[in-house]
Amino acid sequence: MVNRSMYRPAVTALSGYVPGEQPPPGKFIKLNTNENPYPPPQPVVDAIKKAADGTLNRYPDATSRAFRCAAAEALNLPGPEWILAGNGSDEILTMLVRGFVGEGEKLRMPYPSYVLYRTLADIQGASWDQINFNDDWTLPGSFTESTENLKLALLPNPNSPSGTILSESEVAKVAEELECPLVVDEAYADFAETNCLGLVGQNENVLVTRTLSKSYGLAGIRFGFLVAHPEVVSELSKIKDSYNCDAISIAAATAAMKCSDWLADNCSKIIATRNRMAHELPKIGFQVTPSHANFVWCRHENISHRSIYDFLKSQQVLVRLMDFGDHGHGLRISLGTDEQNDALFCLLQGHLS
Amino acid sequence: MVNRSMYRPAVTALSGYVPGEQPPPGKFIKLNTNENPYPPPQPVVDAIKKAADGTLNRYPDATSRAFRCAAAEALNLPGPEWILAGNGSDEILTMLVRGFVGEGEKLRMPYPSYVLYRTLADIQGASWDQINFNDDWTLPGSFTESTENLKLALLPNPNSPSGTILSESEVAKVAEELECPLVVDEAYADFAETNCLGLVGQNENVLVTRTLSKSYGLAGIRFGFLVAHPEVVSELSKIKDSYNCDAISIAAATAAMKCSDWLADNCSKIIATRNRMAHELPKIGFQVTPSHANFVWCRHENISHRSIYDFLKSQQVLVRLMDFGDHGHGLRISLGTDEQNDALFCLLQGHLS
Repeated sequence: MVNRSMYRPAVTALSGYVPGEQPPPGKFIKLNTNENPYPPPQPVVDAIKKAADGTLNRYPDATSRAFRCAAAEALNLPGPEWILAGNGSDEILTMLVRGFVGEGEKLRMPYPSYVLYRTLADIQGASWDQINFNDDWTLPGSFTESTENLKLALLPNPNSPSGTILSESEVAKVAEELECPLVVDEAYADFAETNCLGLVGQNENVLVTRTLSKSYGLAGIRFGFLVAHPEVVSELSKIKDSYNCDAISIAAATAAMKCSDWLADNCSKIIATRNRMAHELPKIGFQVTPSHANFVWCRHENISHRSIYDFLKSQQVLVRLMDFGDHGHGLRISLGTDEQNDALFCLLQGHLS
Repeated sequence: MVNRSMYRPAVTALSGYVPGEQPPPGKFIKLNTNENPYPPPQPVVDAIKKAADGTLNRYPDATSRAFRCAAAEALNLPGPEWILAGNGSDEILTMLVRGFVGEGEKLRMPYPSYVLYRTLADIQGASWDQINFNDDWTLPGSFTESTENLKLALLPNPNSPSGTILSESEVAKVAEELECPLVVDEAYADFAETNCLGLVGQNENVLVTRTLSKSYGLAGIRFGFLVAHPEVVSELSKIKDSYNCDAISIAAATAAMKCSDWLADNCSKIIATRNRMAHELPKIGFQVTPSHANFVWCRHENISHRSIYDFLKSQQVLVRLMDFGDHGHGLRISLGTDEQNDALFCLLQGHLS
């Protein structure tokens, strides 16, 4: 047997990140992992099929240049050198932690937020410093306080599970006050009115991560990217696997970045659904936090969230039950198609009234 | 500016791994990165196109189960729990180093071999211990000597650039003598007569990595895997990104593992080319090391390798020029199609005679 003492102690201590349930396709209405309920743009599918007939026996472009050029254009950035592509924004987050935070050093994040951040620190043998959000999901001043060995701060914006957002000027202030780089995780930014891309050019300590998993309906292809000063991109590139993105996902992601009309339409549909949910869920006893993402965070006034979750699951509807102890618990419900949301609402109405 | 002191010192010290040249497709005969010169099996292409029409808006299976079942069957392993899938075997190697080797600890590898191993140690802030191969590419006894903080040993088998192989019993002896786990990197094993998969069940300190980039003609999709005791697979899974393999590459890799006839045919063709090269290159002054991989390591008796490399490049043929100082220098030539090898041979014959 590989003796347990042979692993890094940081690894044996890990319990491992547990992603949301992924049931067999077709059996459940999946409103638990903030996927886009709609299929991706057709040009993406076409690009994949074309790439399948390409030279798959050859290594892909190590720098995903075609994607980076398309993304720079779509996002109005100075050029591809401001972008680092990754195998999902999870890989980008991994690179950031490996780039900035050593064993015994410290990573800061707000709480409740994306639990993966803590896991990334744990894998690295680093410690983490969770700063509780205020009750209204604003960030307390302690988020920017200096502390020994603080090397990186991660801020999801919009945040999950709350769907709340800090304004660009609030984030700018956080970045200025922090003495370490600030990663703004913008996985859900396409569903919001504002984002922090503009800050990257103003303050080189601001690093923005994006993903194609949510707004582009491409969770299946694993593609994310970092927007940062070219020197940061260059330095972090040294950590990535040589060929971290494959030829097919590069082709798909490149095509996706050219679908700006599709993106606008898709986000409009999801925002319309969000508005409808925010209007209807309170009618059956939920408090809904105003959301800027493709999900809503809701708490029921008098029925246990566990029982609502269990009931929905028994009816083949998956939502995310989340318990943050003293810092709240509730249901995070991803926004589905109108049909899916109707089904959810109908079930909830029957169960709760 | 992100102050350089903000990065981990291990990262600023890195020069970064430089992969082989990747010119624009079609312009060069590429015999420099050990890709398969033939396109992948048609069922793989079909599987990709089918997956493109699937639910790309959903996250892929986090454990690549379909692939692991197909691979377990193809390789006659007890079950999928003996396999960990990764985004190329580079990601598997990264996970292994992160799993076993901490900052300040030690990784061992032979020399000359795959330079990425050193880079992985450097990224981790670990040190490395290179053991020079004997002149006949056998491994000296010092490879298994105990040394402080030695946490993992990496052994490419067949080795690059030499194409030489240690027998299963030689590897078994190395694993028994080492006091840390031994990773046998079998990127090229499908081109050899033997491999070490059988050792994994006998000695849990033997971990075998495989890739679909070489023998399956799928460098473009980035897929590799680890074969190891289920407990090792389980422990290392805690380090991987939640969804490290995408839906399309999982579909492609699953289809590939079912193409055993194609694999046998393809390897036969490449071995026939290898035999022909081993026979013909000596006629124009090369010493060719007997190879068990899809490339040959050759040294010319009296013409500088740099000049041969430059000449070939000027003629649109890329080979790999490698200089290991006191430990040899030469040209590593990937085996191409017959047409490509004819072109290479013709050019060399004209230039060298």
